[in-house]
Parts: sequence; C-alpha cells; structure tokens
Amino acid sequence: MSDAPIGVFDSGVGGLTVARAMMDMMPHESIHYVGDTLHGPYGPLPIADVRRHALTIMDQLVDDGVKLLVIACNTASAAVLRDARERFSRERGVPVVEVIVPAVRRAAALSRNRRVGVIGTVATVTSGAYDDALAGAPDIRVTSQACPRFVELVEAGITSGPEVVSVAREYLAPLKDADVDTVILGCTHYPMLAGAIGYVMGEGVTLVDSATETAIDVYRALAASGIEAPTDNVAEHRFFATGERERFATLAQRFLGPVVTQVESL
Amino acid sequence: MSDAPIGVFDSGVGGLTVARAMMDMMPHESIHYVGDTLHGPYGPLPIADVRRHALTIMDQLVDDGVKLLVIACNTASAAVLRDARERFSRERGVPVVEVIVPAVRRAAALSRNRRVGVIGTVATVTSGAYDDALAGAPDIRVTSQACPRFVELVEAGITSGPEVVSVAREYLAPLKDADVDTVILGCTHYPMLAGAIGYVMGEGVTLVDSATETAIDVYRALAASGIEAPTDNVAEHRFFATGERERFATLAQRFLGPVVTQVESL
Repeated sequence: MSDAPIGVFDSGVGGLTVARAMMDMMPHESIHYVGDTLHGPYGPLPIADVRRHALTIMDQLVDDGVKLLVIACNTASAAVLRDARERFSRERGVPVVEVIVPAVRRAAALSRNRRVGVIGTVATVTSGAYDDALAGAPDIRVTSQACPRFVELVEAGITSGPEVVSVAREYLAPLKDADVDTVILGCTHYPMLAGAIGYVMGEGVTLVDSATETAIDVYRALAASGIEAPTDNVAEHRFFATGERERFATLAQRFLGPVVTQVESL
Repeated sequence: MSDAPIGVFDSGVGGLTVARAMMDMMPHESIHYVGDTLHGPYGPLPIADVRRHALTIMDQLVDDGVKLLVIACNTASAAVLRDARERFSRERGVPVVEVIVPAVRRAAALSRNRRVGVIGTVATVTSGAYDDALAGAPDIRVTSQACPRFVELVEAGITSGPEVVSVAREYLAPLKDADVDTVILGCTHYPMLAGAIGYVMGEGVTLVDSATETAIDVYRALAASGIEAPTDNVAEHRFFATGERERFATLAQRFLGPVVTQVESL
C-alpha cells in the first residue's frame, strides 16, 4: 500500500504547483497527476459540471489503486470535496486532501487584524467555499475578489511588468480598501504572481499559498495513516492529460520543471 | 541595464530554492547563479571566512555586470550583508537583496502570540543575525535552534520517514516548549523539510520560507528601480560552481529541476 502512488487531480497544469511542493517534501512518493485539459479550465463552468468531471477522473484514479487523492484545484475543491469524502474516504478508505481547508486554516491562524482577502476564479469565488471554510473563525471579515485575467496572464508567461501590475492593482483594490493583512491565493496559478501581488499589496500583507500548505497536509495524512513510501522507494511520476497533450507539456514545463518527461493520454 | 542578469549567490545548491521562486515569478529575468561548492557548506565555518569567500564571488558577479545581487544563503547573509550594502549598493549602484530581512519582516507581521522560532545552521544561529533583525519588534520572544543534521538529510534525499521525524522532534522540542506560533526556516535547504517540520510542529504553527519572501523582495527592488526585464526578454539561466561540478549538477536537479542544463566552472 505504501508503495502505491498518490493521485493528484487538477483541471489543467495549475495543480503542478501542488505536485511540485509534494515532490520537494516527499521525493520518494510516486505521483499520478491528471490534468483535465479536455474540460478545463473549470473557472468559468457551472459547479455541477465541475463536480461531474472531477468525480469521473477521481473514480478512475481510485480504480487504478492510488493510496491518497489530492484535489489540487480550488474550483474542484469548492465543487466536490464533500462528495469526494463520502465516495472515496468513507466508502473506499482512500483519504482525500484538497486545497481550500489547508489555506484557510493557515490564514485563520495568522491574520492579526482578522481581515482576510481571498482571490480566485469566478467559480471559486461565487461558490462561497472560502467563506464557508472561514465561518469557523467568526471574528474574521472576508473580502473576496474574482481575478479572471490572472490565469490567462500566467499561462501566457506574463507575471511581471506594467500590464500585470496594472491588472493586479485593479483586482486588489477592494482588498486594500478593506485593509486585509492576509491574502489567500485561492487558485493554483497564483503563486506565479506572488511577486506582483506582494508588490501591489505591500510589505505588511502575508500571502498564503495553498501549494505548500496542501503538501504539508498530504505529509500529515500519510504519516497519520502510516502509508508513507519507504525512503528507499524510487518514485515514479506520471502525468496524464484528458485533452490535447502538447499544450499541457509546454505549460507543465513552466509550472513544474524537468520531471515531465512525457505526457500520457488518459 | 534591464536586460542584465541578476546575480544569485549561495554556498552551494540551497539557494536554488530562492532562484526557483524568482524564476516562477519573473520568468523573463536572466539569472547567473554561483554555488561556492569549493568552500561550502558555510554552516560550520568561522564568520570571517564566510565573509571573505562571499565578497570574492560577489565582486566577480558585479564585475560581470549583474544588475542586482541576491545573497541566497542565510549564513552568508548573516556574515556579509552590511559589507555588501556598502561595497555594492552604495559604491557601485547594485542593489543587494538577502534572505534574512524578508523572512523576519514576514514573521514579525504575522506572529499572533509574539513567540517566534528560528532554525538554521550553527553559523547562522550563533551569529545572532535573526535576533538582531527581530530587535525591531521588541514584543517578540525569539527561540533559536541550530539543526546541523537537516542539511545533510536534505542532500541525501531523506525528507520523510521515521528518521527525519525523530531528528525533527529532537531539534524542535525547544520551539514547541516555547509555544512559538511561527517558525522561520532560516536555511535555504529547509523548505524541502516543510512537511516534516509542519507535521512535528502541528497545524497551528506557520512556517516562513525565505525563498518566497526573498523573491518578492527582488520583484519589489526591480520594480522600484525600474530595472525589470521587458516581458519579451528571453531569460538566460546560467549556473556556476566554484568546486566540483558533478555533485552540484546532481543536487541542483533535486532543488531546481530541469533548467540546469549545464554547470560551468567559475
């Protein structure tokens, strides 16, 4: 069981920021990564469609024998976490880790003035998933902002320069007005924009990146269940795209680096 | 000027975590990375020796025309920051960014119970550099701990499993006893151990990683001076080792990923 791979699922390449943090911290764990490039990006889709696509892929990962599932996509986490817990954790004994709870836990622990900003896709922000998760800290005031152009800019490789700063200033104005001291980067693409976001928000504001927090949660889940790979395990990293593979491979290189030797069809 | 590379300097491969965060956020910036593998690791060396090695390499980077210097090594930052500011920023107009101030600024901004832990090499911890930098926040109580075995474990690829957790429990016991809510990862190798450290410290504790914070500082320094590379700039990443290149290349792959196509002699 401990030799089995971890299944990581995203609507495209963004979840590779989560996979990379996992590879950093757990180099002996095998990972099967699926990008649902056929249906993604999920940001603009209705939540029911996101749920259907996500469950189909996760079913297949569990059938293939993964020991743990990571929903490395904020939009999918917002849409499907509760279903996934029931379907995989309870019914099939496969723990599910996602990206919203770890980031919310961190933000709630660290915000000093109790004003937290959340930025994400339209679907993530309108789902209210972060507001729900932050409901456990009623002293926190949440300011959410959808930033639809951010993903497009990251995928075009434009993460610095005047255009990005100008777009960021516009999106982030409500967060600055609300005087937040913490911003949750509620989309796996946004760590690539941490420079621009940090610059616009100013030195006093802390950015919470779900990639690191989620990887720590994965570590914790493996250790708690005693299903860590042995340190002499030679990890196998496989990458699957449901749609066109070439664009995935090109973008994956930017998000992950060298271990993407080959993209297989699913 | 804005096309010139950024010089990044470390005692070895650890600073690649900083370089990678910079590449993520600023993909159009060229980077010349130097690992002083001939003299590193700096952790066990006297501070005067670290200063001498560091200034020699930075002199050469500035002579080669870098537009900004990054000291991507906590031990070197502790030893040489003030000299470097005088020698490069003031006398030669090359801004210097290092790894201690950005992490300290973040920790001071976010610690809610004002108890902060610092972990690092023996040289970093005994230099008192973090205590000095945190002196501006007199309400913070600092607990420092040298963790000499952590670098060796990371370089051996052992970042999960019972051995790491057992070593981490031992090193981190004083930080747990002091009830810190924030831990500064005061060594560029430690982000690879964030899983184990987060697991041992518990969910309520925030880890501050100087790689991300330093990269945001670099972004800020470039934007403030108006010396960002244009977004159509094709970045060139070069990697130099002062000593043996093969071990550097092998380890670099683990820290950075694929862009290390070649390691050149310096």
